[in-house]
Amino acid sequence: MFNHYSFVGGEHGPWRVVSCNGLRGESLPVVPSVRFVSGLSPQTATGDSWVLRGFTSNVRYAERREIDQLRAQQEGLNRPAATRAALIPIRKSARWWALSQDERRTIFEAQSHHTEIGLAYLPQIARQLHHCRDIGEPFDFLTWFEFAPEHAPDFECLVEQLRKTPEWDYVEREVDIRLIRKH
Amino acid sequence: MFNHYSFVGGEHGPWRVVSCNGLRGESLPVVPSVRFVSGLSPQTATGDSWVLRGFTSNVRYAERREIDQLRAQQEGLNRPAATRAALIPIRKSARWWALSQDERRTIFEAQSHHTEIGLAYLPQIARQLHHCRDIGEPFDFLTWFEFAPEHAPDFECLVEQLRKTPEWDYVEREVDIRLIRKH
Repeated sequence: MFNHYSFVGGEHGPWRVVSCNGLRGESLPVVPSVRFVSGLSPQTATGDSWVLRGFTSNVRYAERREIDQLRAQQEGLNRPAATRAALIPIRKSARWWALSQDERRTIFEAQSHHTEIGLAYLPQIARQLHHCRDIGEPFDFLTWFEFAPEHAPDFECLVEQLRKTPEWDYVEREVDIRLIRKH
Repeated sequence: MFNHYSFVGGEHGPWRVVSCNGLRGESLPVVPSVRFVSGLSPQTATGDSWVLRGFTSNVRYAERREIDQLRAQQEGLNRPAATRAALIPIRKSARWWALSQDERRTIFEAQSHHTEIGLAYLPQIARQLHHCRDIGEPFDFLTWFEFAPEHAPDFECLVEQLRKTPEWDYVEREVDIRLIRKH
């Protein structure tokens, strides 16, 4: 399936892990490398430790004007200069998922400015969201970020801002994995 | 997974098919029986013709007041008197999925009154929605309805009303399968 992806943590892969921090809830086993592959059933090899699966999907909160701003400003993955990455798996609480669409949108944007914060870091910080709650994974979202080394401080600001929002009151598990592309 | 389900069309199952109409796009092969089972990898048997898979998920459009109304009025599946059922697989167009959340909500409720129409038929017509677009299925949604024989005319009104809405301009494939519980 074109929209299905897996992140494999182990001894092989083009991304070298520089840190792996469990910020809330259980962390993940620390691995030397991560690879990002198509499909939900990746070929695994000796030394692989974990596989996290997800799918890209339609937008769940963004309104028209926000989508237009995002499209006008964002750049894709795999830019040659973007040799730094972060993989941030997150699980939200049952309380979050029991909220109605308008309640979640209010927390996500009116109170937490999630899209607005992300927009402020475009095009430097590229981002791809993968959903995984509906397919029985241990996390609800896997977000992959790519940026050039000189924008690493911007990335710190971005995640710090998001983690201070009311939306983060609903995050019950979060792991922050930082990576450098191997040459 | 607790939220994963499959509908299997074939020679075996507790629901006898009384009609199978392709309303838009390609229909499904007509089968004598349907069964509804847990999981995405159901045991299949000789005579099985098709499997449609889906998952239940959080609400995507309903606002708080609508959720409260739905919860106050709806009844569950498997009521002894509810010996009639309908399975309606639907696929929406790429144009629908490219819309923003606010655009989809406007069409779904402000213009089409999808939730409001469904509410008018509660508790007689019980309903369970399964999502399947994100897992590579041929349809986007599988909706299962159950009702008593005396409410069959109400069910016709419900689906007729929905099919006349602006939301249905985005439906590019729809099959309507009607069933009776075997004794």
